[in-house]
Amino acid sequence: MKKLVIIRHGESIWNKKNIFTGWRDIKLSKKGIKEARKVGKILKKKKFNFDIAYTSLLNRAIHTTWEILYKLNLIWIKIKKTWHLNERHYGKLQGCKKNEILKKYGKKKFQEWRRSYKINPPKINKNDKWFPGKEKKYLNIKKYKIPKGESLLDTYNRVIPYFKKKIYKNIIKKKKILIVAHGNSIRALMKYIENISDNNIENYEIDTTVPLIYEYNINYNNNKINIINKYYLKK
Amino acid sequence: MKKLVIIRHGESIWNKKNIFTGWRDIKLSKKGIKEARKVGKILKKKKFNFDIAYTSLLNRAIHTTWEILYKLNLIWIKIKKTWHLNERHYGKLQGCKKNEILKKYGKKKFQEWRRSYKINPPKINKNDKWFPGKEKKYLNIKKYKIPKGESLLDTYNRVIPYFKKKIYKNIIKKKKILIVAHGNSIRALMKYIENISDNNIENYEIDTTVPLIYEYNINYNNNKINIINKYYLKK
Repeated sequence: MKKLVIIRHGESIWNKKNIFTGWRDIKLSKKGIKEARKVGKILKKKKFNFDIAYTSLLNRAIHTTWEILYKLNLIWIKIKKTWHLNERHYGKLQGCKKNEILKKYGKKKFQEWRRSYKINPPKINKNDKWFPGKEKKYLNIKKYKIPKGESLLDTYNRVIPYFKKKIYKNIIKKKKILIVAHGNSIRALMKYIENISDNNIENYEIDTTVPLIYEYNINYNNNKINIINKYYLKK
Repeated sequence: MKKLVIIRHGESIWNKKNIFTGWRDIKLSKKGIKEARKVGKILKKKKFNFDIAYTSLLNRAIHTTWEILYKLNLIWIKIKKTWHLNERHYGKLQGCKKNEILKKYGKKKFQEWRRSYKINPPKINKNDKWFPGKEKKYLNIKKYKIPKGESLLDTYNRVIPYFKKKIYKNIIKKKKILIVAHGNSIRALMKYIENISDNNIENYEIDTTVPLIYEYNINYNNNKINIINKYYLKK
């Protein structure tokens, strides 16, 4: 049985402080580094192996990938880093404390911004200090594609074309794949892989560093995968 | 002034124990990890920046690259890992204590094996437990190209074609390049870049984690670089 393994990065410093992070490039906390090492050990014990790892362009996801692969003695495999797997861009909410936003805008608005599928947070503009187009690592992206504040639908629309075009190809080639990403880029992947409805996706929460495992077969008649089983790998 | 930065990995566990290592995939010692972090800090302080990093397929070099880039806040850049930059393959000497080889074969033979340009160490064969062709990471290399015991000339003959074909191209495109490699793959690079003679290359020793910096201009008439200055970056 083949396995696709998807992992949310370890706790970041802003996860810990309960601040909206999105594309702000916040590092793992000490706890987050420990979590990453621990899941690496667990995967090693369970004899997981990978041919290629995909992650975002954000420090907390790359660092988590590194810690995991180090424990697996797999630091030599290809690690493809892409903005397509970045966290949802939280627009003007980025850098704000979650409890202050909750107090200021009320529970309904707060939950809509955090969990609804189609509602965008307030957007930043191109002159904003934190507009990603100003960062060297995003210079290769066409300006109109650079997010200023995404709904989960917007995130889906950049994650899934990449998944279909690049990652799926390697799955069909029987490559063993690890994806290390973020709460919302992973929700987009789950929505696609499990065909979850727009409404139901609101109810999915992804824990940090708990591997989500899809077991699948490949159907070579149509080059599609058939998901056989899904589970979370807890210790 | 443009800069090419070449760094030898931090101390490995076998560097510390004075054992011939070559392609055996030995990890950094605790001291080696500290050395890597320290040189990362120094490069950061001196405001070095990189667009792409090249390293070998060996743990000690990749790990050193990671520690350096982490300190530089550059973990998102592309890291190209290639067997072409691996350490010299030491054949049957790999895994042997240097002082025992010295005692057994005498000083002359020992120095020839370590430092001469054209003399090979005793070779392993394809059935040897440690023949690299048995490792997954080297499966993509044509079998006849996989070393069984290299002279520095053999190492040169795999390092320099890669350098000319892949790395040089990015230098000409004005990319800022970091190379993290090994004592002998770096000696091969120095021989080529500085046009050092076969005899003189014996006298070059590379310290772990002391950056070797080449300052250069690009001559766009012939797409060649002109080395203006060379120095080692000590703290």
